[in-house]
Amino acid sequence: MRVTISRKAHFNAAHRLHNPHWSAEKNKTIFGKCNNPNFHGHNYELIVSVTGDIDPDTGYVMDAKVLKDLIKEQVEDAFDHKNLNIEVPVFKNLNPTAENIAIVIWDLLKPHLETGQDLEVVLYETPRNFVTYKGPS
Amino acid sequence: MRVTISRKAHFNAAHRLHNPHWSAEKNKTIFGKCNNPNFHGHNYELIVSVTGDIDPDTGYVMDAKVLKDLIKEQVEDAFDHKNLNIEVPVFKNLNPTAENIAIVIWDLLKPHLETGQDLEVVLYETPRNFVTYKGPS
Amino acid sequence: MRVTISRKAHFNAAHRLHNPHWSAEKNKTIFGKCNNPNFHGHNYELIVSVTGDIDPDTGYVMDAKVLKDLIKEQVEDAFDHKNLNIEVPVFKNLNPTAENIAIVIWDLLKPHLETGQDLEVVLYETPRNFVTYKGPS
Amino acid sequence: MRVTISRKAHFNAAHRLHNPHWSAEKNKTIFGKCNNPNFHGHNYELIVSVTGDIDPDTGYVMDAKVLKDLIKEQVEDAFDHKNLNIEVPVFKNLNPTAENIAIVIWDLLKPHLETGQDLEVVLYETPRNFVTYKGPS
Amino acid sequence: MRVTISRKAHFNAAHRLHNPHWSAEKNKTIFGKCNNPNFHGHNYELIVSVTGDIDPDTGYVMDAKVLKDLIKEQVEDAFDHKNLNIEVPVFKNLNPTAENIAIVIWDLLKPHLETGQDLEVVLYETPRNFVTYKGPS
Amino acid sequence: MRVTISRKAHFNAAHRLHNPHWSAEKNKTIFGKCNNPNFHGHNYELIVSVTGDIDPDTGYVMDAKVLKDLIKEQVEDAFDHKNLNIEVPVFKNLNPTAENIAIVIWDLLKPHLETGQDLEVVLYETPRNFVTYKGPS
Repeated sequence: MRVTISRKAHFNAAHRLHNPHWSAEKNKTIFGKCNNPNFHGHNYELIVSVTGDIDPDTGYVMDAKVLKDLIKEQVEDAFDHKNLNIEVPVFKNLNPTAENIAIVIWDLLKPHLETGQDLEVVLYETPRNFVTYKGPS
Repeated sequence: MRVTISRKAHFNAAHRLHNPHWSAEKNKTIFGKCNNPNFHGHNYELIVSVTGDIDPDTGYVMDAKVLKDLIKEQVEDAFDHKNLNIEVPVFKNLNPTAENIAIVIWDLLKPHLETGQDLEVVLYETPRNFVTYKGPS
Repeated sequence: MRVTISRKAHFNAAHRLHNPHWSAEKNKTIFGKCNNPNFHGHNYELIVSVTGDIDPDTGYVMDAKVLKDLIKEQVEDAFDHKNLNIEVPVFKNLNPTAENIAIVIWDLLKPHLETGQDLEVVLYETPRNFVTYKGPS
Repeated sequence: MRVTISRKAHFNAAHRLHNPHWSAEKNKTIFGKCNNPNFHGHNYELIVSVTGDIDPDTGYVMDAKVLKDLIKEQVEDAFDHKNLNIEVPVFKNLNPTAENIAIVIWDLLKPHLETGQDLEVVLYETPRNFVTYKGPS
Repeated sequence: MRVTISRKAHFNAAHRLHNPHWSAEKNKTIFGKCNNPNFHGHNYELIVSVTGDIDPDTGYVMDAKVLKDLIKEQVEDAFDHKNLNIEVPVFKNLNPTAENIAIVIWDLLKPHLETGQDLEVVLYETPRNFVTYKGPS
Repeated sequence: MRVTISRKAHFNAAHRLHNPHWSAEKNKTIFGKCNNPNFHGHNYELIVSVTGDIDPDTGYVMDAKVLKDLIKEQVEDAFDHKNLNIEVPVFKNLNPTAENIAIVIWDLLKPHLETGQDLEVVLYETPRNFVTYKGPS
């Protein structure tokens, strides 16, 4: 009886998209307005889903409060009101696209789940653009 | 050509989380505010999804009106404006967590689908917490 | 230069609608399912709006964090995961309709605003039903 | 490292549901109000999801701007503010149910993706009814 | 103690914008895609708000069920799944813009309210375009 | 017959809150995380509402397409994917709080409306925080 429990969270941050191995011109061509050297920003909406067996004593796959706190400690405290390129070390050498941010979040959360629990991360960069990552296949 | 048709529905109800095999103290520790003996309540938002083949005569997997009525008869009429712990018999001995409510709804709906149709139930307990159940695996 | 700042908040609670001066039969006729003696419940979504002058030093009408904390202390801590009829004293003798809950919230918040600031409370009882109260006229 | 990128889009259109091989009476019985010969209409909300590998140079599965433009060219320009039955040739002989529209959209978009990229189409006919198509299985 | 009670409702319909006193060319120039002679359509989302005094016996400004039924009888039954230009008589000589539809809805509902109750109609033509009408001033 | 027409728009941007007449310490105390010198950012959702008389020839208060284009030219092109503090001149000497941004947007749009048309600007800084400005009183 595997069930998925999902929790929505939120953080906002500044970023820019940039490939340091490319010329300024090529960066501008590929990333357009997202390459702005002065940064722009987003309200990132995050949906974290954990799939696992129900604990027969609690009726929970995972306590939603525990999941909420885990997201706060691992993601919100690290990313909220930050400049991702400058202040979040992993993005020093990794372009902070929605795809890469989702993978980083998955990697931050997965070690804290129990064995056998699956993890999915959905990240909205804008209300109309979002990405989904379910882990390495 | 398998397609999924989904229908959103709504009911509101009171409940409390409680394990009768535990002490009052342990219930309070594990379930926190959700253990309130006077109950609290939610607007449950429900998304029911049926996956199957398209009927070539209608172009429907299932008539959305039929699905709407099925949800009303099986779920809304049984749960809406009710106290789940007291008035819905299955929860006399089953903790009404979102996970368990989703499984109960799945079990109520599945017998009414055609052979070969798959069922998924998504249940929002709050706008930020929801669960998904796709049946026994 | 009067501007309005608004903050969304959330609480969930159980309640029932009942007029103690009426017969059980009349209560059932008037309030229908909402009169269920075992209670039902809602996710109440709350929008609190404060209108006032901008402080030229901060550029704020009011610090959104201060408003968030005020709502938490005065409303969420008092109402969240509670049975309104049993556990919130003001509703011992006041029917907890959305209209009356909105007025109670307005009365709880208004004394904490500065002179000259106007207050509006919007309360969603369900995603399709909500009420608005702007204070006595 | 397969990631899914999703983009929401919108078009509005008129349509009616009708099976030309059936009598008027049977069409009315099966399709009800949706069979209205004078047409009715919807705001269709569309979510297109592409799953593939991340390009290590860009950090993108696919440039969201490219996906947005592809949806505009293939779907919005063809369907928006149109009468689907009369003005979109594929529906001359295909009943424009949400299921069939989703399949048509999938067929329009898939040839423009790279080999190895998977496509999913979600189409909301109303805020409460939607369908999902992931391609032939 | 005036409070506003609001109810959301929904209908979908086909329409076209057209001024019969203008040439086809001018209609096309002014109304663009909305002038399509084969019609297009929308999911109209409607918010009806009634402001009045609270009845001290019920705690209601107006029973939300009564308001829901009034909207169904006066608006949904008349407009839902209809072609506004052809099947709703008032639009035979009135261009069915969102503005005009909102005024028509206001005129349909107002006579059914009690003296002293104010009415506001908000009509979403798309998720991004909406109009508000509060009655003649 | 005054009616209000509203249009939703979107831009995203980086900003920081800072008062140059204050010490770094006081800025940190008052603005907290919003004072981050490396900037953070938001998806700003904007609702622009214009109230006026209906043109009897068109049935419009204002063509929604004209309003959409006006918002794009005056607001989106100036603010989207920008660093408000560095790249939008008006915020060189004005703290870019939601309140001040709303006033700036109102001042940008108002000169383009007709005499007698009223303007309201609602600006969401996050899904839970927003401000409203209706012009000088």
